[in-house]
Amino acid sequence: MNLLLLEDADFVGADRVVLRDRRLTHLQQVHRAESGDSLRVGRIGGQMGKAQILRLEASEAELHITLDQPPPAKLPLTLLLALPRPKMLRRVLQTVASMGVPRLILLNSYRVEKSFWQTPFLEPAAIRGQLILGLEQSRDTVLPEVRIEKRFKPFVEDQLAQICAGTQGLVGHPGQYPSCPRAVEGPVTLAIGPEGGWIPYEVEKLAEAGLQPVQLGERILRVETAVTALLARLF
Amino acid sequence: MNLLLLEDADFVGADRVVLRDRRLTHLQQVHRAESGDSLRVGRIGGQMGKAQILRLEASEAELHITLDQPPPAKLPLTLLLALPRPKMLRRVLQTVASMGVPRLILLNSYRVEKSFWQTPFLEPAAIRGQLILGLEQSRDTVLPEVRIEKRFKPFVEDQLAQICAGTQGLVGHPGQYPSCPRAVEGPVTLAIGPEGGWIPYEVEKLAEAGLQPVQLGERILRVETAVTALLARLF
Repeated sequence: MNLLLLEDADFVGADRVVLRDRRLTHLQQVHRAESGDSLRVGRIGGQMGKAQILRLEASEAELHITLDQPPPAKLPLTLLLALPRPKMLRRVLQTVASMGVPRLILLNSYRVEKSFWQTPFLEPAAIRGQLILGLEQSRDTVLPEVRIEKRFKPFVEDQLAQICAGTQGLVGHPGQYPSCPRAVEGPVTLAIGPEGGWIPYEVEKLAEAGLQPVQLGERILRVETAVTALLARLF
Repeated sequence: MNLLLLEDADFVGADRVVLRDRRLTHLQQVHRAESGDSLRVGRIGGQMGKAQILRLEASEAELHITLDQPPPAKLPLTLLLALPRPKMLRRVLQTVASMGVPRLILLNSYRVEKSFWQTPFLEPAAIRGQLILGLEQSRDTVLPEVRIEKRFKPFVEDQLAQICAGTQGLVGHPGQYPSCPRAVEGPVTLAIGPEGGWIPYEVEKLAEAGLQPVQLGERILRVETAVTALLARLF
């Protein structure tokens, strides 16, 4: 946790918060904080700054807050991701938040196992929890928007062209395609497939909506690694 | 597992192998393979190709092997990594192997907790196990060399300059440094610090040995994410 994130409900005054949950435990056990210590904080959806610990007890901590810095810029990106397996989903959500992706769409694909859609990790509170871990890691306060699209065809036919309009549309896909471009200018819409990749029909439909296939070399990367590698190359 | 890796001990003839371990289970449960099926294989340290399943029983499988393709090229890189915490170490070893890093040096740093050096995940068999998972993921056969250097100062003073000679030497470090270069030509020696970063003394010693600090932006990434992002940008 490189940034302590504050929820609206933590505020007991304009510049005072009281913490009682895992963040209190973290202060006590990881930071080994003491009264008077100062640490980096951010308000979810708002600014970042410093907190000074006024009072640190076994059951709660009271902090004085000064928020005066904007969070870091987000990437100019909409990321479409074929729904990963549940364990990978949690890590990918953290990665996406920590890398500064502002919009994530979790999409169905032929090679997404149906059971993946049943995972409790897709519940809004679970998604938010993982995103917050990513923001705490990279020092950001703004939660990415996450949309869930369980039907590939209607989404790609009826909505994707509009999302993609005015952006550079790309699909990460192994094969005889151009290399993923580097250091692009302007906004991007990027789609990354499931383990095993998109099927040809899906690549075709994504291309019709404006997303051109690009590849990252012959090595097959795990979804989390592919997301990071493509973003690091694009931006 | 995108490539079934074969050990020398699996071979019962020039082009025949017998499998009995987790790879047999994988064939049965994940691939749901049957006699006659064909799949991608590689010989550790050697070539890649196809196997045909001659016989698939509960306790063993016999395969006919044709090896005729070279493994993918490695990156022209020596990667120095401050020893990550044990759980992260395992994932980083997989990532390093899957991205094609040929040489990894696990190094001490002031911010590496002493207890990390006690982990059983540093035993050669444990390291090899994780590297193999990475090779299986990305379809490669050649194990990265992994060196362990528990003493920062003697290693950096006595050995690093020689390792770094003739390469572009870089240290990933947050701060007012040039951005990490993109699409470099020629070999690189790259050092990545622990959680919390190198201390200034370490950055100075690494610079004396020929490694110049570069940064990846203001976001603080987990070690595994930083490794992937830096490699994707450099190569």
